[in-house]
Amino acid sequence: MKQWRKTGPLFTDLYELTMAQCYFTENIRDEAAFSLFVRGYPKNRSYYVCAGLEEALAEILDYTFSDDDLAYLEKTGLFTADFLGYLSGFRFTGTIRSMPEGALFFADEPIMEVTAPIIESQLLETFLINTIGFSSLIATKAARCVHAAAGRNIVDFSLRRNQGADAGLKVARSSYIAGFGATSNVLAGKRYGIPVSGTMAHSFVSIYENEYDAFSAFAKNYPDTTVLLIDTHDTIEGAKNAARIGVEMKKRGKTLVGVRLDSGNMAALSRDVRKILDNAGLADAKIFASSGFDEYKIARVIEQNAAIDAFGVGTKLGVSADAPYLDMVYKLVHFGARNITKQSPGKEYLAGEKQVFRKTGDNGMYAGDIIGRKEESFDNAVPMLETIVEKGKIVAKMPGLENIREYFAQCFAKLDEPYKDIANPSPYPVSVSRSLLKMQTSHT
Amino acid sequence: MKQWRKTGPLFTDLYELTMAQCYFTENIRDEAAFSLFVRGYPKNRSYYVCAGLEEALAEILDYTFSDDDLAYLEKTGLFTADFLGYLSGFRFTGTIRSMPEGALFFADEPIMEVTAPIIESQLLETFLINTIGFSSLIATKAARCVHAAAGRNIVDFSLRRNQGADAGLKVARSSYIAGFGATSNVLAGKRYGIPVSGTMAHSFVSIYENEYDAFSAFAKNYPDTTVLLIDTHDTIEGAKNAARIGVEMKKRGKTLVGVRLDSGNMAALSRDVRKILDNAGLADAKIFASSGFDEYKIARVIEQNAAIDAFGVGTKLGVSADAPYLDMVYKLVHFGARNITKQSPGKEYLAGEKQVFRKTGDNGMYAGDIIGRKEESFDNAVPMLETIVEKGKIVAKMPGLENIREYFAQCFAKLDEPYKDIANPSPYPVSVSRSLLKMQTSHT
Repeated sequence: MKQWRKTGPLFTDLYELTMAQCYFTENIRDEAAFSLFVRGYPKNRSYYVCAGLEEALAEILDYTFSDDDLAYLEKTGLFTADFLGYLSGFRFTGTIRSMPEGALFFADEPIMEVTAPIIESQLLETFLINTIGFSSLIATKAARCVHAAAGRNIVDFSLRRNQGADAGLKVARSSYIAGFGATSNVLAGKRYGIPVSGTMAHSFVSIYENEYDAFSAFAKNYPDTTVLLIDTHDTIEGAKNAARIGVEMKKRGKTLVGVRLDSGNMAALSRDVRKILDNAGLADAKIFASSGFDEYKIARVIEQNAAIDAFGVGTKLGVSADAPYLDMVYKLVHFGARNITKQSPGKEYLAGEKQVFRKTGDNGMYAGDIIGRKEESFDNAVPMLETIVEKGKIVAKMPGLENIREYFAQCFAKLDEPYKDIANPSPYPVSVSRSLLKMQTSHT
Repeated sequence: MKQWRKTGPLFTDLYELTMAQCYFTENIRDEAAFSLFVRGYPKNRSYYVCAGLEEALAEILDYTFSDDDLAYLEKTGLFTADFLGYLSGFRFTGTIRSMPEGALFFADEPIMEVTAPIIESQLLETFLINTIGFSSLIATKAARCVHAAAGRNIVDFSLRRNQGADAGLKVARSSYIAGFGATSNVLAGKRYGIPVSGTMAHSFVSIYENEYDAFSAFAKNYPDTTVLLIDTHDTIEGAKNAARIGVEMKKRGKTLVGVRLDSGNMAALSRDVRKILDNAGLADAKIFASSGFDEYKIARVIEQNAAIDAFGVGTKLGVSADAPYLDMVYKLVHFGARNITKQSPGKEYLAGEKQVFRKTGDNGMYAGDIIGRKEESFDNAVPMLETIVEKGKIVAKMPGLENIREYFAQCFAKLDEPYKDIANPSPYPVSVSRSLLKMQTSHT
């Protein structure tokens, strides 16, 4: 069982609670359905990767207001005793339909629909957007890096730059789903069973009188897992020292795993370093590279014939630097007997409970999606939203992290190259069914 | 006492622990001093605001490896039993000198220096950068928004877009330090005592047959704190409905606090809405605006004579969208008897333990900083780093959140306008003392 860091139900915008207070007083308990989706794309994006579901469910299905929470709410003066009494017995009793983690999704497609008495479904808004939005943002960014790396290994090095502690855990998990091989984040390793990886810092090299001594000490302690950071003083000299260590390790029956470059012209340096290692008979020693990598820099150095075997990707993955947020929203689409759509200029969305149907072509590749009514079905198209919670309980089998990772890889393999281009992707075809379109004007 | 969410010492990069293992085996226990600073500025920045210190201390002075943690580390196969035994008794025993929270700081200035046996001081790296880096990033972004708003109130609406749960808490606290008036984040309200604020969502308006009924229900429940969201259908019609409600409330001896605009041309709409409210005799009703605001949009609508009294700032504050990370680093500057500097190309920094001296001019405004040696002193210049931890214990009085907020306001008032410009700020003068410069070449 995962040890999720629970936030509790006060992790919400105040208005969710003041609206709930109104619904409570006015005795408005009708079922309301909300749709969770992303409006449009940030630049250079043409797909998203769904992540964060397991954590979201662990939290919201366990929502309970503690005495402490209730005392705080009372103190604000905004809530009646009756309502606080209601909250003290609160639990989510509704239905949740969702895409599985690891699935691809596209702009305007619901990735989750929540149906429950309105106080309950409304109250989930802030947490769901926060958790699923950020996890999916990072899974998407990570998928772009993995795609750019074209089969080379990538490790999450972003922990120090993540926006707070929780982000560190979510980035490690989301990037692992998208195909990263490991993380430097030890806590994520412990919590989620993700492989952990690391080399050494410049400070380690600096405290020794010379680089060779530093390398030698590390190699002695880690005869099977040593990766030497070779740019503290001069990368070429560093490579020579590393080669010397590698040869010595070989004589002891050990293996130098590799070296890490962390500054300078990566493509040119990596080729020079490769030669130095090869000439020393260390063809198996890998070259790792870090410092400012993202999908763009990875693609660039590969284009320049860099001799890099693996990438450490930090900052720009960890905050999704070129697109640090998604315009994810949670919109009321059905209330009581009515379908609902808001009409604010520029913020229109589709009314009604929906389903996403994904078509696959004869070649096995994704051929386009249809956003339809919940009740519809289409030949040769798979419905993407599955019922995972009923009456407040999980009713679907939740996959483990390794299964999610594998599912993502299968999905991603079915997405044609033009949609995956990191700089100029083609728009993936998503249409709206006739029946759903008709519903928009009839408002029934 | 604050309930900080502790992460524990596994919230770190693996290499901090593998280096520590080497130091342990090699019996390297010398004192090492590390400097925490930011290299350069993201675009449009010319100052930073220090935040996150209280939380950082709460965590690191309490670092203990649980049995669970140690069992996990053992399972990785990377650590010796002796070293794990050492970790089981680990506590931080060193000295920390730091700028106070709320202080301004500038590129390359140490905002913290940590001195301790190298295993201890090295181990803090990841957590300190993560916590103080992100908190300072957001405090800086928030200060820019507050400056742009020129006295108008601002509320943190970013929770749903924050990068995870912990970021939500840090953003609320950091933006409050920088002068925000409230947050929508209820948990941050409870934890830190920050005022909470909120209005209503579009969904609330949508579930009623008409907007007037929705407004009426809300006003009935919140006779003293109602702010009506008026753009669900049409902002001008919404303003008229809100005015009708305001007039009715007045008759009941109550007051409509205001209305909120959330779409459309904010400057033009706000003036039209102002007229509608004024004509109804509701000159006291405030106009709040939200949707995509940051310092740039705030400045723009004020320039366009918007009749906006307060701003809800969300996404772009919450992830510091135009600059989502700082290049904060934690560098070894002194080890044993040696000053240390790394020489990788493009990554040079100043060796030696340091102090930052801030000069104030005759007009009471900041006149420039000097980065000097720890032992130096300068006339008319105040040392900014204070000793706050000695032998692993807090030895300074830690200010409360309100005091930090007030201290920031005092500091910010002493920074001349050209340095605060949000689009084209002047570089603040920071020099390096002769003595510190000399130390760089002598390496003693």
